[in-house]
Amino acid sequence: MPSTNLTFANQDAHRAWLASQAALPAGFRAGTARFEFTPREAPKPARMTLTLIASDEPTPDFAAMFTRNAFPGAPVIVGRKRLGEPAIGAIIINNKISNVCAPDGVETAERICAETARLLGIAPAQVLPSSTGVIGWRLPADAIIAALPQAVAALSNDSIMPAAEGIVTTDLYPKIRRAAVGKGSIVGIAKGAGMIEPNMATMLVYILTDLAVPREILRDMLKRAVDVSFNTISIDSDTSTSDTVALVSSGKFPCDDYAAFEAALTQVCRDLAEDVVRNGEGVRHVIAVTVKGAPDRETARALGKAIINAPLFKCAVAGNDPNVGRLVQAIGKHVGAHMPALDLSRLIARMGGVEIFANGAFRLDPEKEKALVAHLRGAELYASAPPKDGVFAPPIQFPPHERSVEIEIDLANGQGACAVFGGDLTHEYVSENADYRS
Amino acid sequence: MPSTNLTFANQDAHRAWLASQAALPAGFRAGTARFEFTPREAPKPARMTLTLIASDEPTPDFAAMFTRNAFPGAPVIVGRKRLGEPAIGAIIINNKISNVCAPDGVETAERICAETARLLGIAPAQVLPSSTGVIGWRLPADAIIAALPQAVAALSNDSIMPAAEGIVTTDLYPKIRRAAVGKGSIVGIAKGAGMIEPNMATMLVYILTDLAVPREILRDMLKRAVDVSFNTISIDSDTSTSDTVALVSSGKFPCDDYAAFEAALTQVCRDLAEDVVRNGEGVRHVIAVTVKGAPDRETARALGKAIINAPLFKCAVAGNDPNVGRLVQAIGKHVGAHMPALDLSRLIARMGGVEIFANGAFRLDPEKEKALVAHLRGAELYASAPPKDGVFAPPIQFPPHERSVEIEIDLANGQGACAVFGGDLTHEYVSENADYRS
Repeated sequence: MPSTNLTFANQDAHRAWLASQAALPAGFRAGTARFEFTPREAPKPARMTLTLIASDEPTPDFAAMFTRNAFPGAPVIVGRKRLGEPAIGAIIINNKISNVCAPDGVETAERICAETARLLGIAPAQVLPSSTGVIGWRLPADAIIAALPQAVAALSNDSIMPAAEGIVTTDLYPKIRRAAVGKGSIVGIAKGAGMIEPNMATMLVYILTDLAVPREILRDMLKRAVDVSFNTISIDSDTSTSDTVALVSSGKFPCDDYAAFEAALTQVCRDLAEDVVRNGEGVRHVIAVTVKGAPDRETARALGKAIINAPLFKCAVAGNDPNVGRLVQAIGKHVGAHMPALDLSRLIARMGGVEIFANGAFRLDPEKEKALVAHLRGAELYASAPPKDGVFAPPIQFPPHERSVEIEIDLANGQGACAVFGGDLTHEYVSENADYRS
Repeated sequence: MPSTNLTFANQDAHRAWLASQAALPAGFRAGTARFEFTPREAPKPARMTLTLIASDEPTPDFAAMFTRNAFPGAPVIVGRKRLGEPAIGAIIINNKISNVCAPDGVETAERICAETARLLGIAPAQVLPSSTGVIGWRLPADAIIAALPQAVAALSNDSIMPAAEGIVTTDLYPKIRRAAVGKGSIVGIAKGAGMIEPNMATMLVYILTDLAVPREILRDMLKRAVDVSFNTISIDSDTSTSDTVALVSSGKFPCDDYAAFEAALTQVCRDLAEDVVRNGEGVRHVIAVTVKGAPDRETARALGKAIINAPLFKCAVAGNDPNVGRLVQAIGKHVGAHMPALDLSRLIARMGGVEIFANGAFRLDPEKEKALVAHLRGAELYASAPPKDGVFAPPIQFPPHERSVEIEIDLANGQGACAVFGGDLTHEYVSENADYRS
């Protein structure tokens, strides 16, 4: 469940709320630059946005986590090295091309870092690079370097909104979440709409704070916060090669209460993670699955993930069809394949609070069917409509509400529990991804 | 690769070919009955087909494999018991409702077996039940029992075609494959279009032979044949609760060459498995992935499955978009999550014979892009067109060709190899499954 229960009547209302969350923590500036270029692999003009986030001074207090995909992008390879550096002073992010397994990818990333550092008067190893977009293409290094001065000139300590907008690709809207802690704040932004099942890290997420928390404590906190937020979501079961979450402290204000800081950080991560699902490619229903009574938390998480990644169940949800047989199929598929000894005889399943399965059998009748349909309709973010030009596209650019399809699975097999978040599988997803690059 | 390289210009040509394959092996009869009923869980009239396959005499020589889903259907529970019986004399199959986790499901299945046995003059335990369709609803036992005499009356030793047509649900066309061995033959039929990633068994498949092969040898052969056929396919990564493959020998002719029999059985299974993929829900491209150079065959199969189950890659194929970045993402996701120590530095990837990745980097240029697009278009089964009524439906009822999108992954890490088959992810799949039950 999100910490908020927001509804937005239109895009303007959503933008106004985002603006109210967007003040940068003390000690940071952000700016962007946009330009056109032509990829070498598929020559056709494209647009790229550079996003630059800089701290007033390089700071030792930073943390970052990265994808576990075995083909990590060049920026992830460079980013892992940066974790051993004494300090960080800037993050440079581009969209459109992810710089993954491209020839000379690491050299290109380092060259961009070096030029960013020169313009900011810091060391090249104090710049963390990030890229997102098409996998396999080469970055247009010369064009990026030519645009960097424009990004530096745009740096402002005013708002994180330009950065939240700059990092997106197929996202419908920018995502910003903040929490106040003592004299300071934690502010995070996220990009991510497809290829989303993070594994120990996530998409592109940048979290800034002006509260002084030492590096090692910050890194431990980030690990725990990611585990209960980004690592509990999946839009399409695909794990990006570029997943990155970075947390940087400017240390402008003392942090008197680490527990309060970690609670706030965790909430910012959870809210951003749910925002990412809510704004997932083609997502028209967020599906929130709580698994409890499991032998342990990992079992609960794995089973929840199996449910939110089951294509037939996701399609049924898209159609407001309470086809709970497909839900039980997904549970049985996972348990049969991975833990066949688990006793499922006491399993209870509920959707929207309605008991649908108990003691090894379904509990269905026409009245329950109506209640389930009403629950599904109530959680729908927008209605799908056949498009005139053959391409399904969401009719909204804002999140109208934060309601989910609520599923509860009680295994009655222990104390382990986990909540996971996914989306349905829709025509809008297929339209987005059957012709993404053209 | 199928054993044939068939093309069909239209449905009539396909039907004529099926008829040429459909002669029943000696010693078997098949018949069907159709009727209307109203499900209790969602009252709205529906149609069901009963399919009855009977051997002239009960035979001890039969084999069957079932789903590993932890919520198996009642017919699977009963079928497992039948494996211990001395002989089998009939198979009774219904579509529309799968009898999975329905109250009194096993009792209902046994009641239908008993009535079938009474009409055929055999023992109840000599009848193998099978059901496919909606999960969670109760079978209309009275209506089924009332229709059984019609199925018995329809029994004929002429053709397996009525049975091949009777067992389907969302399939576009019936599936029959045969092989001649010595004086006899092996003939198989298959149902299966969605919820298809069999695990040690498959969908509904019935294979009949008039060659005498003793039960234990038959069972060993079936296990090996299933392992290299049905267990290498996935349409949507969902594992049905009803998967069943049964093989029955009437023993009418001696089998002089077990090796030839097993080779023919394996080919029938492979061809049916590919037919199931080719006729998968919404499948517009069959994707054939060969993984070689793996540490062992299981590793090769698991990696191949990860590729054919990766939604973003499947969407790209649907759009004839050679987005090979998503292919490499899928490999990296699987290896990163399940065997992070595997050395991928020598991996070579080819699509349609074109090298796209080697030595840790993509090998792409605009000319290759064109060749890849041509390969994808050549493997397309039909073109998708925006529908007038908002529901995408295949414009064909026959398989126009047997070509696939050919992907080859060489890990250069050993001698393990496996070929797997999957389909793309299309609007037709979403239309089929977002409102399947209504």
